[in-house]
Amino acid sequence: MTFQDVILALQQYWNTQGCVLWQPYHTEVGAGTMNPATSLRVLGPEPWHVAYVEPSIRPTDGRYGENPNRWQHFYQFQVILKPDPGDPQEIYLQSLVALGIDPAKHDIRFVEDNWASPALGAWGLGWEVWLDGQEITQFTYFQQAGGMALEPVSVEITYGLERILMVLQDADTFLDIRWNQRLTYGQLQLQGEREYCGYNFNTANVERLRSLFGEYEAEAGSCLQAGLVLPAHDYVLKCSHVFNVLDSRGAVGVADRAALFGRMRDLSRRISEAYFRQRQEAGFPWGAPEGQADHAAEPLPLVSAPPAKPAPFVLEIGTEELPAGDLDSALDQLRSAAPAMLDDLRLGHSSVRVLGTPRRLAILVDELAPRQQEQAAVIKGPPADRAFDAQGKPTAAAIGFAKGKGVPLEALQACEMDGGRYVVAEVRQPGRPAHEVLQEALPGLIGSLRFEMSMRWNASGAVFSRPIRWLAAVHGDSIIPFAYAGLVAGRRTRLMRFAADETAEIRAAAEYPAILAKTGIVLDPDARRQTIRDQIEKLAARVGGEVPEMEGLLAEVANLVERPTALLGDFDPAFLKLPREVLVAVMRKHQRYFPVEKGGRLLPHFIAVRNGGSEHLDSVTRGNEHVLRARFSDAAYFVRRDREQRLESYLPRLATMTFQERLGSVLDKVGRVERLTAILAKHLGLDAAAMAAAARAAHLSKADLATNMVVEMTSLQGEVGRQYALADGEPEAVAEAIFEHYLPRNAGDRTAASLPGLVVGLADRLDSLMGLFAAGLQPTGARDPFALRRAAIGLVQNLVERNVRFDLRRGLRQAAEGLPIEAPETAQADCLVFITGRQSALLLADGHRYDVVEAVLAAQGHDPAGAAAGVEALERWARSEDWAATLQSFARCVRITRSQPSSASLNAAMLIEPAEKQLAAALQQAEAKPRAAGSVDDFLNAFRPMVPTVSRFFEDVLVMAEDPAVRANRLALLQRIVALAGGVADLSKMEGF
Amino acid sequence: MTFQDVILALQQYWNTQGCVLWQPYHTEVGAGTMNPATSLRVLGPEPWHVAYVEPSIRPTDGRYGENPNRWQHFYQFQVILKPDPGDPQEIYLQSLVALGIDPAKHDIRFVEDNWASPALGAWGLGWEVWLDGQEITQFTYFQQAGGMALEPVSVEITYGLERILMVLQDADTFLDIRWNQRLTYGQLQLQGEREYCGYNFNTANVERLRSLFGEYEAEAGSCLQAGLVLPAHDYVLKCSHVFNVLDSRGAVGVADRAALFGRMRDLSRRISEAYFRQRQEAGFPWGAPEGQADHAAEPLPLVSAPPAKPAPFVLEIGTEELPAGDLDSALDQLRSAAPAMLDDLRLGHSSVRVLGTPRRLAILVDELAPRQQEQAAVIKGPPADRAFDAQGKPTAAAIGFAKGKGVPLEALQACEMDGGRYVVAEVRQPGRPAHEVLQEALPGLIGSLRFEMSMRWNASGAVFSRPIRWLAAVHGDSIIPFAYAGLVAGRRTRLMRFAADETAEIRAAAEYPAILAKTGIVLDPDARRQTIRDQIEKLAARVGGEVPEMEGLLAEVANLVERPTALLGDFDPAFLKLPREVLVAVMRKHQRYFPVEKGGRLLPHFIAVRNGGSEHLDSVTRGNEHVLRARFSDAAYFVRRDREQRLESYLPRLATMTFQERLGSVLDKVGRVERLTAILAKHLGLDAAAMAAAARAAHLSKADLATNMVVEMTSLQGEVGRQYALADGEPEAVAEAIFEHYLPRNAGDRTAASLPGLVVGLADRLDSLMGLFAAGLQPTGARDPFALRRAAIGLVQNLVERNVRFDLRRGLRQAAEGLPIEAPETAQADCLVFITGRQSALLLADGHRYDVVEAVLAAQGHDPAGAAAGVEALERWARSEDWAATLQSFARCVRITRSQPSSASLNAAMLIEPAEKQLAAALQQAEAKPRAAGSVDDFLNAFRPMVPTVSRFFEDVLVMAEDPAVRANRLALLQRIVALAGGVADLSKMEGF
Repeated sequence: MTFQDVILALQQYWNTQGCVLWQPYHTEVGAGTMNPATSLRVLGPEPWHVAYVEPSIRPTDGRYGENPNRWQHFYQFQVILKPDPGDPQEIYLQSLVALGIDPAKHDIRFVEDNWASPALGAWGLGWEVWLDGQEITQFTYFQQAGGMALEPVSVEITYGLERILMVLQDADTFLDIRWNQRLTYGQLQLQGEREYCGYNFNTANVERLRSLFGEYEAEAGSCLQAGLVLPAHDYVLKCSHVFNVLDSRGAVGVADRAALFGRMRDLSRRISEAYFRQRQEAGFPWGAPEGQADHAAEPLPLVSAPPAKPAPFVLEIGTEELPAGDLDSALDQLRSAAPAMLDDLRLGHSSVRVLGTPRRLAILVDELAPRQQEQAAVIKGPPADRAFDAQGKPTAAAIGFAKGKGVPLEALQACEMDGGRYVVAEVRQPGRPAHEVLQEALPGLIGSLRFEMSMRWNASGAVFSRPIRWLAAVHGDSIIPFAYAGLVAGRRTRLMRFAADETAEIRAAAEYPAILAKTGIVLDPDARRQTIRDQIEKLAARVGGEVPEMEGLLAEVANLVERPTALLGDFDPAFLKLPREVLVAVMRKHQRYFPVEKGGRLLPHFIAVRNGGSEHLDSVTRGNEHVLRARFSDAAYFVRRDREQRLESYLPRLATMTFQERLGSVLDKVGRVERLTAILAKHLGLDAAAMAAAARAAHLSKADLATNMVVEMTSLQGEVGRQYALADGEPEAVAEAIFEHYLPRNAGDRTAASLPGLVVGLADRLDSLMGLFAAGLQPTGARDPFALRRAAIGLVQNLVERNVRFDLRRGLRQAAEGLPIEAPETAQADCLVFITGRQSALLLADGHRYDVVEAVLAAQGHDPAGAAAGVEALERWARSEDWAATLQSFARCVRITRSQPSSASLNAAMLIEPAEKQLAAALQQAEAKPRAAGSVDDFLNAFRPMVPTVSRFFEDVLVMAEDPAVRANRLALLQRIVALAGGVADLSKMEGF
Repeated sequence: MTFQDVILALQQYWNTQGCVLWQPYHTEVGAGTMNPATSLRVLGPEPWHVAYVEPSIRPTDGRYGENPNRWQHFYQFQVILKPDPGDPQEIYLQSLVALGIDPAKHDIRFVEDNWASPALGAWGLGWEVWLDGQEITQFTYFQQAGGMALEPVSVEITYGLERILMVLQDADTFLDIRWNQRLTYGQLQLQGEREYCGYNFNTANVERLRSLFGEYEAEAGSCLQAGLVLPAHDYVLKCSHVFNVLDSRGAVGVADRAALFGRMRDLSRRISEAYFRQRQEAGFPWGAPEGQADHAAEPLPLVSAPPAKPAPFVLEIGTEELPAGDLDSALDQLRSAAPAMLDDLRLGHSSVRVLGTPRRLAILVDELAPRQQEQAAVIKGPPADRAFDAQGKPTAAAIGFAKGKGVPLEALQACEMDGGRYVVAEVRQPGRPAHEVLQEALPGLIGSLRFEMSMRWNASGAVFSRPIRWLAAVHGDSIIPFAYAGLVAGRRTRLMRFAADETAEIRAAAEYPAILAKTGIVLDPDARRQTIRDQIEKLAARVGGEVPEMEGLLAEVANLVERPTALLGDFDPAFLKLPREVLVAVMRKHQRYFPVEKGGRLLPHFIAVRNGGSEHLDSVTRGNEHVLRARFSDAAYFVRRDREQRLESYLPRLATMTFQERLGSVLDKVGRVERLTAILAKHLGLDAAAMAAAARAAHLSKADLATNMVVEMTSLQGEVGRQYALADGEPEAVAEAIFEHYLPRNAGDRTAASLPGLVVGLADRLDSLMGLFAAGLQPTGARDPFALRRAAIGLVQNLVERNVRFDLRRGLRQAAEGLPIEAPETAQADCLVFITGRQSALLLADGHRYDVVEAVLAAQGHDPAGAAAGVEALERWARSEDWAATLQSFARCVRITRSQPSSASLNAAMLIEPAEKQLAAALQQAEAKPRAAGSVDDFLNAFRPMVPTVSRFFEDVLVMAEDPAVRANRLALLQRIVALAGGVADLSKMEGF
């Protein structure tokens, strides 16, 4: 099949599915979604089935045609089904069959991929569809568009035509795709691809494009004012394209981006609203969707022959592919909710197993009672003296109560309760059959599951991680036909798609595991993980390699397949020249492949796990190899382009990236970081070599942000800088510091090992924190757009890890002095509080005592390393036997003085009582001991010997003496003792104080 | 078939024809032609077959969806075939069959329609394809694109999808077309159509659009500099779309338009050249077209059994549909060229008939000799004395000569000739067989035909009005197989398409007329005209009407059909409320229908002439009625919109129409015309009522230019103004003058009948002429962009027709005074010369004597009416018997004085001789006679009596007397005589002077 044959076949297929066949849009779009046939028609209740080709243009994806499968101009085939037809996955898979793809011969997977377009105010949940590892389609349930919730939800299916053709024609690159019998894709498209890349990356005039953006925006505004929806929409699309070209030119900074997005989003929202209003005013002329068969609305079938004695029970919730995380979460929730539900229902049961795969959640009980246990309850009625008259005859109150509770009048009894005498009735709740109560309870069980992101799909309004498509509930050999999400539970389960048997009847609950096992489905996640682990190890061994750090990815992969079969693929060893981190990121993150290593070095192999058996494994492997080659080629392309110039030469481009409007460009920031690095390096006492490395690293610290590789994979920032710096011949310490200044990149990551790395990171973070606080952009609530929490945590962790004592107050002030805007002292103080707050959270998360953390941070929060040590020490002290006495002793000194004005200095001559003289002497001894700043041990070692003296002092001496001078002198003595804890800990925060 | 089914069917059809299936373009285009898949790919030699849908946007065509078949957004299906496959019409017609159209049931016609896109620097020749009067396709042989000649030529087929669907679904409007099974075109498109109309006509911001135009243009320029062809092309398309929207907003004036077009054309040309260069540098990687079978290159077949005695001969040149004018012209040319060729060839022949239809040119000879007549020629050789030596033996010279001429040595003779004695040989040229000489001559005969516009179509490089697709040449029963245009003549002719027999063998030349007649083809144009006339009269009579002024259209229609069948159609009488001129123009000009009248009033009927028999005439009639309804609806729409406001209220819009950059807007011009009208009205002595009417008419004269109706059908300018003015209640004289000021609109049109109309027209034309001459924009060579020739001719004709004496010198000066720019006297003089030149051409075209015209215009070209009268009169005089004497007499006076300085005044006292005294007396008498200015009669009546006196004077008197005083006085006398002709005629221009 040629490229054009595929388009014809898809048009025909969707024509027979009742779709309107539509045409590509008349202005540049990044995707078929932006065609109003999607972006507007998905709004409102009217049914809408449409299919069309969309030549899509994404300037930043341009590679001059040098990448095998990523071009700035490519072809989508877009399908919208509104409302959800109930089986869109199956309809879609049949379209692949129409293209001549035999799904049985391939590994077709639905891999979680959620979609959001800030510019369109739209989002949805769904998947990438992978064919042997190649993403060939995006499949999304649209939840919102133009800022409006979609009712009903639309199914969006977006085919990547070139990707499909590569599979169909076994082509290595877009270039080789046969467009028709005579010409290839490359012959028709390559020249244009190169030219548009040239335009987008080099020729486009930034000023003119900005001016175009403004004019388009203004026209869109006029159109909206005049109620012209489509013309307005066109202009937003034009804004969007111009934005994309500006982006390609590297002319869009962070804040810039947010502002431009905001303007487009605002217009999009107004357009969507106007469109909706227009249709509404027209009375939604295309009608509401034809009523989907909502089985829930019909009477449930009768249950025939429910089990008479305890019998196995199975509930299967059949879904479209759940995201890996949601599968784990659902299983966890069910593991507690399911037994709780059974207990609540008073249904006797053996242990409950909760298992699942991406397509099913299953609750299995070996023995479930046929009925509820009976229950008796005593219910309180009216006071006895109001229930019976003087003659002991029941009053109307008693009669009403008995009737209401369904007990005979004579069964009422009087009891003493709640401090009075009341009439009570003993009500017996007989056990109802299990199927009855489960019919009522199971919908609630499913409905109680919560997910990080949930979706709606059909008219039932049910909300779940992904659509629920079937329900099976069997008790013994009897169905429990409850209703949920428009479905009624039965006994049919679905097996592997395109297998010989795609469904099966669960004749008896006990058979369920065997039914699945027979088709190779591994229902138990642990078992899946184990079999995958075994397979991987075997395959790795075959090439003499091993797969380290397998577990995290393994857990994810095990949640992506029902019937796992690992396969070993190869890639061109030439790619091993690329930075290891790049290769690993591509394999693990993009493709969920396990890299294979030997002695810490990558081998040119990878292990993937398909969903299915070992049939046609060769072609599946070849497909996966294709995909990886394309991915690696993309990386190689970037590195090659990037390496055409030195890392340092990327610096000027940072001037076009806005860090924050008032704080200037990223290049401005680099300047500040360099300055602060110099100050801190001196302050922290780096030697000359380290100081030079830090200075150079600060200079280059952000240069890699302008490289293609980092623009493409932001997670490689720092890593790429290190690699390129080394390749440029920069000293190793410099390269290392460039990398390390980002450490730790996330929770659990390591901290900077070298002092230059630590110092540059410190400077970077202090600048960010102080700058953004000064600009009034501190995090509020859940909003933390500049990731300042992460910055504060990293800052604390680095200092603590290396035990670098550092006064944040001074650091923030120095950072403030370098800013282009004023950072008042209040902002510095707020910033310090914020950082201390992060350290507090860190310490608590590590299991430290709340009171200890509070006590230490209150005194030395400005010095994270000191504070951390203090917490450790104070906790040790607090565990000691005599801690209570020590604390109490110190507390007495604090309590009596804290409401008093600070006294004049202690006058030894005025000491009268022996006990006070003794105490003064002990204080002198304590004060004389050498102490490290902030040291809890030093403080307590100094103070503890004074405890008996303090006790005696309070026994013998009246602090609040009549003579004011004497009183003041005694208070001064105690204040001196209290002062011993200064800069160490505020012990008043301690429990027992 | 639904709309989308038709697209699928066309895609499939052209897929099987080997076309690349392409996609609509990613920016707004007015037609599929602008997609680079056409506009660029047609350049260069590489073969290119492509087909695609193109949603096309033509803002000015918007009617808010109120027109049945004209929307600003519509769908084209575009096909390019490069090179010409040899039978593109047939391939195209088969595509209609693929859509389920049975061509036998319809009237399918190829109606001349040439195409040119100034913006793309492109043009081609071809047709509209009409299906029952509905234009469903444009079929064009591209000759040039981007300013480059195309080699090879591309065939462009552009389907109007909606039009085809209206036929297929018998739908009345676009709205009713079923798009798919569920939704109509209207449901999907109407809202958008309305919105875009609202945007294009009202909302679009003119200033912003102008700014966009400039930015796009600048980007296109940058792209070209960087060698980026496609990005540059995109920006030109964007320019073009913005231009179209500006045009819809009424913001583009005449000169403005030319300037913007020029800028776009320039970019287009550079883009085309860059594209061509790019492909050339790549070595035209898709190859040259596969060699078409060029039969001309092969040896011609032998002629078997040529006739032995005179026999009938027929030559048929089979073509694709010739334009009506080209058919006439070709027949005319052949009528003289064919007999001349036969005579040249010395082939005896009976009379030659030349007949033809749009698809064939035929030469028929009843008797054509089988061989040439023998010819003998005497050829001169060397001088006799050098040919024979003293012994009379032939020398080498004689031997060589004899051998060279192929005569025996002994046949040489010596003759006296050319003043010497030479050897001569009598060379007999024997008659060659007719087929031999015709084989050689017929290509030249066809190649000698010339057309107003000619085209190339295939690799033979032949040039013709339309492609020649077959050649038949039969003499007796024998083929004369000559080669031309890649074809070899045979005996097969083609008949009506889709008839039972589409071709036939001409077994003998004599059978040819009968073969055609049998299928209903009327070969003789006169006979076609007659049968159509008869049919029309019969049909008109059927509704009690008549068809006046039939002949012009009849001549055209007869040239559009081979087998004419007239049909009578009806239209809604409600349309009769529209201005008659509009209805007539639509029927006659757009549709080639004959309007039916009764007593000078239109009837709601029309007569069309189909090509074909009377089969399915009902459905053909219905189709034609559909088309007319749509056309009338369009007009009705315009009139309705226009009449929503008064004519006067259109005036402000004229401010946005540039008349000419330096001369301001059309509104500025109206102001000048009003001023000049007032001056001229006074000058020409209009009464108060006429003066008021002229003033008001001048004010409103151009208002209709801003109405929809005139924007749509420019030819109705003035006419629409009159109608709307009447409807507004303006006085009849004002309405009439608005109309008349444009008269005469073309050669043969009437002139203004009312004085207000004449005066306003005069003012308008004087302003245009003087203004544009002042701006340096006088016509040069063939270029006359402002139609100043027409203006000058109209000016002259009006003055002459009503015999209004008017001094153009004064008029031009007054016009000059009103201009915003300086009009120096040289410009005024040039302008006068230009106008006089037009009158000269007019007079000569009327058959006046060249010398008379020159003589009179030289003296009174500034007064056209006077000059015209003078020419008439002088011609009368010049025919008189004694003219020669009179002229000579006057000439003697002129000749002797013209090289002399102007003498002092005549001194009667110095007259000496009687003859001179007599002459002076005669002169006094002549001068005393009352004379009208410029009157030839008065002048000659005054002069003629002097003739004898003049004769005597020259006999008796020596003018050049020795005495200078005497001489001067005599010269003065003669100069006074010469002066009699002043302001009348310069008789020195006369023959015989």
